[in-house]
Amino acid sequence: MRKIRLYAPGPTEVPPQALLAMAQPILHHRTPQFQAILAEVAEGLGYLFQTKSPVITLAGVSTAAMEASVSNFLSPGDTAICIRGGKFGERWAEICTAYGVKSVNIDPEWGSAASPEDLEKALKANPDAKAVYATLVETSTGVLSDIEAFGRIVAKTDAILVVDAVSSIGAVELLTDTWNVDVVAAGSQKAVMLPPGLGFASVSDKAWALTKSAGCPRYYLDLAKAHKSMEKNSTPFTAPVSLIIGLRETLAMVREEGMEALLARHRKLAEACRAGVEAMGLTVFSKAPAPNLTAVSVPDGIDGDKFVKTLRDEYSLTIAGGQAQLKGKIFRISHMGYADQIDVLTVLGAVELVLSKMGYKGSGGASAAAKVLAG
Amino acid sequence: MRKIRLYAPGPTEVPPQALLAMAQPILHHRTPQFQAILAEVAEGLGYLFQTKSPVITLAGVSTAAMEASVSNFLSPGDTAICIRGGKFGERWAEICTAYGVKSVNIDPEWGSAASPEDLEKALKANPDAKAVYATLVETSTGVLSDIEAFGRIVAKTDAILVVDAVSSIGAVELLTDTWNVDVVAAGSQKAVMLPPGLGFASVSDKAWALTKSAGCPRYYLDLAKAHKSMEKNSTPFTAPVSLIIGLRETLAMVREEGMEALLARHRKLAEACRAGVEAMGLTVFSKAPAPNLTAVSVPDGIDGDKFVKTLRDEYSLTIAGGQAQLKGKIFRISHMGYADQIDVLTVLGAVELVLSKMGYKGSGGASAAAKVLAG
Repeated sequence: MRKIRLYAPGPTEVPPQALLAMAQPILHHRTPQFQAILAEVAEGLGYLFQTKSPVITLAGVSTAAMEASVSNFLSPGDTAICIRGGKFGERWAEICTAYGVKSVNIDPEWGSAASPEDLEKALKANPDAKAVYATLVETSTGVLSDIEAFGRIVAKTDAILVVDAVSSIGAVELLTDTWNVDVVAAGSQKAVMLPPGLGFASVSDKAWALTKSAGCPRYYLDLAKAHKSMEKNSTPFTAPVSLIIGLRETLAMVREEGMEALLARHRKLAEACRAGVEAMGLTVFSKAPAPNLTAVSVPDGIDGDKFVKTLRDEYSLTIAGGQAQLKGKIFRISHMGYADQIDVLTVLGAVELVLSKMGYKGSGGASAAAKVLAG
Repeated sequence: MRKIRLYAPGPTEVPPQALLAMAQPILHHRTPQFQAILAEVAEGLGYLFQTKSPVITLAGVSTAAMEASVSNFLSPGDTAICIRGGKFGERWAEICTAYGVKSVNIDPEWGSAASPEDLEKALKANPDAKAVYATLVETSTGVLSDIEAFGRIVAKTDAILVVDAVSSIGAVELLTDTWNVDVVAAGSQKAVMLPPGLGFASVSDKAWALTKSAGCPRYYLDLAKAHKSMEKNSTPFTAPVSLIIGLRETLAMVREEGMEALLARHRKLAEACRAGVEAMGLTVFSKAPAPNLTAVSVPDGIDGDKFVKTLRDEYSLTIAGGQAQLKGKIFRISHMGYADQIDVLTVLGAVELVLSKMGYKGSGGASAAAKVLAG
């Protein structure tokens, strides 16, 4: 018997109501029924992204939304400031380079966030920068950035602020309009609670203005074209029908819970998870820990890769190891999307079980988490 | 009570075994279990595409695969020959233009196929052409092109032959390797029997060589990067897990039926459908009718748009109307993928019912089709 449990930061567990909605006989995309679904989804995305700007849905995983957030706003030869400090921050710079955009990089140590001062300095040194690329939660390190502060700084310039909220939208506070975030790039497979396959990009008026002069080539990922179709409750190409039908379900769940309760739930789960790992004598890796996932340093004497593999192969429970320079050095636990208090106890229990089998002595993780949750 | 029936040329009906496979709890994409699925799918795609070259799977609908088939092989300023004659042929030229590639267009009348001679002439007039873009079945007109003949012509040049088989792969004969087709672009939502959301591109050695000098920017749709991951049974970005699990199911169905039987089935369904519409006094629109869909001219005195809408709104049965210049002038019936003999009788019966309600006199469509099917 194999019971699959998914506690990696994406893809995450999909609620059964969404799975079953997507298993219904397929609808044609050019019908009034599907148009009504697109309209409903557009409204729900506005709520999720906390914006009055349109949120474009793309058929593609999150990286498609990230690429669209470069190619629709910039021209080859333009300068952009990319805040890195992790695998996904680095992806912003890689995409810029692929399009001939000069990327000025801010490089906080992996595990730390860039400071607003770092950004202010970079913008002063590069007054021609057309865009700033940042990451709300860097999934590879579990670091939360101060997007509100970044927004205050970038709003004073002609540059747009583009934020990767792939793993954080629907789990971490992001007041897109209030914080002056021009573009939010996201995906379906994390706290949006769906299978991978949809990308999202919200676009402010300031960002739309840039699309008119942007010289990077684009066709499939053309946001202005998608927006034009969206205004008629349509899509420029065949819509990913079943995923959008699933999206209607998960957006309804978000509405029902309400954004405030949803954010409080994630904060609480993160607090409990951190208390649990610390009670076990482990160290939270990130110096600015995020509400959607917790990155934990692998303790001395434990083989980090083997630990993650044992959980997966012997217990069918998936958490994530470290990526790139953090391979074997950290493990990452997700508590986002379709995740509740019992999930945190479950995953802490499993972590303790396997660490203990591997000779690690720390214990009491689930109890410490329970104390936070009961409090 | 609404019973939904889908006879439009994409998205098409998805078999229940695939729907249910996709409704299983989601797998993480970086696991040996999912790697085994990717390996199985790669082999099944090779069989479906009749090629020993790798078939790359992209998270995106068919247009993503078409765009990848331009940006990975060409540079701005290059010349390409685009065979148009329909909405999807025109898309090849639009994508080339978006990337600064000069598109030399061959324009057969909508409803007719380009001749091999037309192509030969265009290649002689443009000896610097780096690629020829063609369409196996032009979904907007139901026209089948002679790709085998195109392949013989293009193979003698330095150009690559790129074929849009979006609606035809898995329904219409396409001997990719034998016919010297360098790139086949396709999607999941037609005869591959899945929801929209996957794009495919097979790539020959001749085409891979071009990727090295191709100067168009690309990141998300980078085929060489995807191929490198594929060789390790992986994907460069998060994989569209659930669609790929569905793909495993439908590829197994293709294997079980066998390509020869599958192609014979589609030919028979098309023959029966044409016999049916002709028995009703209707005219097949295409002068080179395809095995996967039948385009029919709307008879005099009938409002084509209203006809399609009535089928959809009163009987929940979706066929397609005409697109662009053919709007209101033709209707299109799909008989591809998860479609059998009873489906052809069903859709012909429904067409006759609604036409008769609208005052059209012709009849006997299903009977004529039954005769072909029984024979």
